Amino acid sequence: LALLFCSRDDDPVAWRAALAREAPEVEVRIWPETGDAAAIEAALVWLPPPGLLASLPSLRAVFSLGAGVERMLADPTLPGVPLCRMVDPSMTTSMAEVALLHVLRYHRDLDTYERQQRAGVWRLVLPRPARATTVCVLGLGELGAAAATLLTRHGFTVRGWSRAARAIDGVTGHAGADGLAAALDGADIVVCLLPLTAETRGLIDAAFLARLKPGGRLVNLARGGHVVEPDLLDALATGQVAHATLDVTAVEPLPPEHPFWRHPRVTLTPHAASYSLPETGAPVVADNLRRLRSGRPLRHVVDRARGY
Amino acid sequence: LALLFCSRDDDPVAWRAALAREAPEVEVRIWPETGDAAAIEAALVWLPPPGLLASLPSLRAVFSLGAGVERMLADPTLPGVPLCRMVDPSMTTSMAEVALLHVLRYHRDLDTYERQQRAGVWRLVLPRPARATTVCVLGLGELGAAAATLLTRHGFTVRGWSRAARAIDGVTGHAGADGLAAALDGADIVVCLLPLTAETRGLIDAAFLARLKPGGRLVNLARGGHVVEPDLLDALATGQVAHATLDVTAVEPLPPEHPFWRHPRVTLTPHAASYSLPETGAPVVADNLRRLRSGRPLRHVVDRARGY
Repeated sequence: LALLFCSRDDDPVAWRAALAREAPEVEVRIWPETGDAAAIEAALVWLPPPGLLASLPSLRAVFSLGAGVERMLADPTLPGVPLCRMVDPSMTTSMAEVALLHVLRYHRDLDTYERQQRAGVWRLVLPRPARATTVCVLGLGELGAAAATLLTRHGFTVRGWSRAARAIDGVTGHAGADGLAAALDGADIVVCLLPLTAETRGLIDAAFLARLKPGGRLVNLARGGHVVEPDLLDALATGQVAHATLDVTAVEPLPPEHPFWRHPRVTLTPHAASYSLPETGAPVVADNLRRLRSGRPLRHVVDRARGY
Repeated sequence: LALLFCSRDDDPVAWRAALAREAPEVEVRIWPETGDAAAIEAALVWLPPPGLLASLPSLRAVFSLGAGVERMLADPTLPGVPLCRMVDPSMTTSMAEVALLHVLRYHRDLDTYERQQRAGVWRLVLPRPARATTVCVLGLGELGAAAATLLTRHGFTVRGWSRAARAIDGVTGHAGADGLAAALDGADIVVCLLPLTAETRGLIDAAFLARLKPGGRLVNLARGGHVVEPDLLDALATGQVAHATLDVTAVEPLPPEHPFWRHPRVTLTPHAASYSLPETGAPVVADNLRRLRSGRPLRHVVDRARGY
């Protein structure tokens, strides 16, 4: 079985070495050295050139190197074979960790202290116990569930919101469009870990932000498309949102003229929350390759109607 | 039994209410309404006016509202009765939490991203697993041990340093002057939670900082007197220390002209890491008051020779 690797954001040599350990029977080819296209039955890719996958006549499965596949699905040349999103334990740990970091940062008023430092102000905000801070985690898939669980373990009051109801120990669950208001009302901090789909695009708009506790904070670790950026800027201007941490933006890299860059109440990180690593991702891909060869069902297959 | 409360930094009414619940038999008087001084057998104080405690002829014990008592011990009018430092479970939790926040912030390169944001730079630093970050916790008393344990539970590689050897699960322990080099050598992040004593004053100097991994980070949650501030500024200038988070400074509030205020590689918080709360601190004081009345040994008594 030959697999084609194609990504500008991942290290092909490291992935080939990791796959050689986990699935030595698989021949890994690194694009553009495709060789005989007819021998390629699987592809491990991130945003391949449009048409590349369609040019592989024997292709039976596509494995995404990323967890969010909305851009892969938007490619009209994507073949109809199963598309699997990346589920990598180190990616999950990394995402939950960064969610905890940003929630702790807000819970301990570090954004306020950073503003005070710039203004030369030494003023204490009395610390509160973690249970006094209500965090709403949007999305309870692999990544959202891990983040909600870690936040719960730390003692925060955690609500979760997902498309379909999902029970997680210690998390107050809400589901669907009808459950959004209850998930958000009066929350101190919202953490977005949703997939980007037709339903979730633009979800975080003026009406959404108005539901948070006045002076609430937003952490977006998912996709820039979830946020209506002008609405967020308005909510920051009125103080309804006291601070936002954005790991993702509508356009990445963020254009130099964008107001987020110099906004005193926005923290930007360059889509850095979570990456799949060859050491931990390759075993997951190898398992799916064995399933492909033996005809067993693949894991983490994207439901194209749902979008994730 | 009458107890005198005196502090400018703590809420006397909340403490009196909490003590009324926990120790209803105790009469709490709030300075300066001292009443008959001869009836006062205990004092719950933070930095009382010099001479106040010495003026109480029946005083049998002094309870500090703070964990660090070096300023109380420096008062030559402090009576020779037992002095107990505050050990409050919420204070311990709060301190461990803030240590985790700042370690996560460095581990996830948020200081770098904040600098990049100011410079308009969008550049990823690949996340690393927590075990790849070595944290040295200085001080393994009530607060340091809790911080080290929480960091260990999160997956960091944790070393501890204390005056006398102390075993903590998952923490590589080092002790005494001889053990300091091994505790520090090549550490990514140092978290200071030491008591301030004659031995620890000025510990964090040029030689100390030179032992960290180049580009290491410092988190001081203890006392400003632990750090030789000009040496830290030099180490920040050379890059030996990439960033420092200081919750405490030699002079507090930090004077307006101090270079830390506007230093791009210093995060200042206004002695905000941890506070004793009446709800959680009062039961601890009440327990000691019962011990005092029944003649049993008090808990958390300061060893004046040792300084904590």
